[in-house]
Amino acid sequence: MKTTDVLIIGGSAAGMVTAVTGKSHWSKKEFILVKKQKEMMVPCGIPYIFGTLDSSDKNLMPVDAALQKYGITSFVDEAVDINVGKKEVVFTSGEKISYHKLVIATGSTPMKPKWLKGADLENVFLVPKDKEYLDNMKNKLGEAKNIAVIGAGFIGVELSDELVKHGCKVTLIEKMPNILNLAFDVEVAEKIHELLAGRGVNIITGKGISKVIGTNKVEAIELENGEKMDMDAVVLSIGYKPNSELAKKAGIYVDEDNFIAVDEYMRTHEKDVFAVGDCAQKRDFVTRSRVATMLASTACAEARICGMNLFNLNVVKTFSGTIAIYSTAISNTGFGTAGVTEQRAELEGIATVTGLFEGMNRHPGNLPDAHKQIVKLIAAKNSGVIIGGEVIGGLEAGELTNVIGLAIQNRMSVNSFLTMQIGTHPCLTASPAAYPLIKAAEIIANKILRNMKEE
Amino acid sequence: MKTTDVLIIGGSAAGMVTAVTGKSHWSKKEFILVKKQKEMMVPCGIPYIFGTLDSSDKNLMPVDAALQKYGITSFVDEAVDINVGKKEVVFTSGEKISYHKLVIATGSTPMKPKWLKGADLENVFLVPKDKEYLDNMKNKLGEAKNIAVIGAGFIGVELSDELVKHGCKVTLIEKMPNILNLAFDVEVAEKIHELLAGRGVNIITGKGISKVIGTNKVEAIELENGEKMDMDAVVLSIGYKPNSELAKKAGIYVDEDNFIAVDEYMRTHEKDVFAVGDCAQKRDFVTRSRVATMLASTACAEARICGMNLFNLNVVKTFSGTIAIYSTAISNTGFGTAGVTEQRAELEGIATVTGLFEGMNRHPGNLPDAHKQIVKLIAAKNSGVIIGGEVIGGLEAGELTNVIGLAIQNRMSVNSFLTMQIGTHPCLTASPAAYPLIKAAEIIANKILRNMKEE
Repeated sequence: MKTTDVLIIGGSAAGMVTAVTGKSHWSKKEFILVKKQKEMMVPCGIPYIFGTLDSSDKNLMPVDAALQKYGITSFVDEAVDINVGKKEVVFTSGEKISYHKLVIATGSTPMKPKWLKGADLENVFLVPKDKEYLDNMKNKLGEAKNIAVIGAGFIGVELSDELVKHGCKVTLIEKMPNILNLAFDVEVAEKIHELLAGRGVNIITGKGISKVIGTNKVEAIELENGEKMDMDAVVLSIGYKPNSELAKKAGIYVDEDNFIAVDEYMRTHEKDVFAVGDCAQKRDFVTRSRVATMLASTACAEARICGMNLFNLNVVKTFSGTIAIYSTAISNTGFGTAGVTEQRAELEGIATVTGLFEGMNRHPGNLPDAHKQIVKLIAAKNSGVIIGGEVIGGLEAGELTNVIGLAIQNRMSVNSFLTMQIGTHPCLTASPAAYPLIKAAEIIANKILRNMKEE
Repeated sequence: MKTTDVLIIGGSAAGMVTAVTGKSHWSKKEFILVKKQKEMMVPCGIPYIFGTLDSSDKNLMPVDAALQKYGITSFVDEAVDINVGKKEVVFTSGEKISYHKLVIATGSTPMKPKWLKGADLENVFLVPKDKEYLDNMKNKLGEAKNIAVIGAGFIGVELSDELVKHGCKVTLIEKMPNILNLAFDVEVAEKIHELLAGRGVNIITGKGISKVIGTNKVEAIELENGEKMDMDAVVLSIGYKPNSELAKKAGIYVDEDNFIAVDEYMRTHEKDVFAVGDCAQKRDFVTRSRVATMLASTACAEARICGMNLFNLNVVKTFSGTIAIYSTAISNTGFGTAGVTEQRAELEGIATVTGLFEGMNRHPGNLPDAHKQIVKLIAAKNSGVIIGGEVIGGLEAGELTNVIGLAIQNRMSVNSFLTMQIGTHPCLTASPAAYPLIKAAEIIANKILRNMKEE
């Protein structure tokens, strides 16, 4: 029987980053990573294989190359059994590996709701991280004239925008009153809605799908209000469930939402067993509620933290909950979000003060490619601590969101933005006299000042 | 005689931002701003009026509009005398204003070195923030075939790149061994050098100019080594001196480099007199040495802090020294820097550990417009506190530099980057598994780890 210092199950972003960070931190330890598939997809690149990228071959994550570079052994196999007492894992091939430390990074699987009639018809697709499935799906969608995308989270939004480029009719259907409802407040989501609609996507919000109609293949869909729409294909992007069956079977504690329970060091309840990424339990950084956030930003941070804590707990390197930070783009407009929305904060009983600033991402605004830039900051009412931020801008919006993320994760207050020195350049950023983070922070600071005077 | 709560002398970025921040903070106070010119230039936009922008009219800073919006009075005049005892300022027009608080924001003037023979010939230009001067200069340079730009700080670099677009021959001359010598370490500066040379700029480093030759007009220049080069025009971009004569004359303490001495609240040594921007004394945030940094990022931060402290000192809103953060671009390549370079840290006796990571600003790297991205981080040797960063990338480099700036200004260590959650997107950022700030931080953390083991 093989033995190894560290065994990692799962070779997508979380597994790979755990392996690479762990090995570079604990260079004398042996690491083995086992993954289910030979070729892994860049997870966030998946929607783009349907448009911007010609093929899924251009969206491969160089997992093997990364692992090789660090001297990490990897092979393709599937774990079927974990014995946490004996510290052994058994694989489909019959292979058995004994570990000192085990990391479970088994990811997530797209949800196909049981209540949805017709969900098994031909041409109903999910969005898994599976190259073969996606290649087939791409072929089929290429022939479709009417496609319904169900669920307007970021995958649904990105996919709709990519599909509509091919000249087919795309209808994006969201049960909630707004697209990207978890990530953006209404006033920001509305602007993304407008932009996406302007690109030709037919968006229906506030109504869910009730069934898919067809004999063998998709022919139509029916909405909750009885409305029927002809369709050739349906894509379900309504969420993912954690792959935790293996852990559960092994007696590793899994919470009531089927996430593997972990602490701040990414340790499960079993000794020497860690879990990271989509399969691992998450709490929101701000509200401390358990959440089902599944994002590369979160998974990779967990993975790095796990890697650094494998053989010695490092008390300054812990995972303190997800700030659910991510960014996306529609054409040359970028969007980003971090922390909680105003709406979410209120639902969770956190009094907030917000500031929204609208400016330009270039200065002077006459420069070519200048783009409107909007920043909304959400701060806790009494302390002014920044707990959320939403951004619309040009392609710089991604890194601008990361500035906000760093502030949230380090529990900075708006004062940190008020006194912040920012590098600005006509072709790269807003004006130093109207930098959106600072202007939004000023709005909040002034509101707090006025509140204090009134009380 | 007029009286006002706050009188601000100077209407460029520092004056304007002090006025706007001050007024929105102290809304019941009356603010008057006096500026020397009616029309103000966006300072960082000046190089771009020679190329990207058709005319200086497209580079106007909407100072009057901003002031009006906030209910701030402004007029065009020049202060000739300050009486700090009587708290009065006299202007060229004969106008006299009595103030409660005075803010000096008189800026800086380009240096014309006295030792440079021929510096007064026709077609020798400086780069002042003066619209009329710049319009005339633009006309003259438009006729020139051979232009020498002296001094390869960021203004020299940006201007060379703009001028060369017109098909004239541009020679950029820098006395120091590398262009952008104060802002970037050699290995990063070399890459900018290559790029600029590739755009057609003839770059000469390690040799200064010794004289400008000509009868009335520029005909040639001579370098320190005796080499002569034919030229039709010369632009001197070798630095700026603070406009502090007015303050000095009024008995306000000015340091040995002619900067108006200020404390962390931007107060001069005279009661109720503040100074901000290029004319105000600066210390480096990291080294605490006095420095001659003149940047909008620094000026605007000082201005905001001054505005907020005018009538009550706010102990959490102080200016703790410049992090000299700025960004610039050549075509679609962006550069940024913050804090100290490795070279500067060593000169000042700070032991450092550095990490340099080279990756891509998109993921997968096959996406259109993907651009190489390089981040160098400089950390203090024992603590791992981040004291500097240098970035090359696409146009996101500006905001990426701001992430580093926030970390430096908040004295974060590399641990903050190791545990950082970052939002990533194929079209907006690097991969979450290879985010350059984190990878560079990891290199530093591993070096520190190895050092600790060895010691």
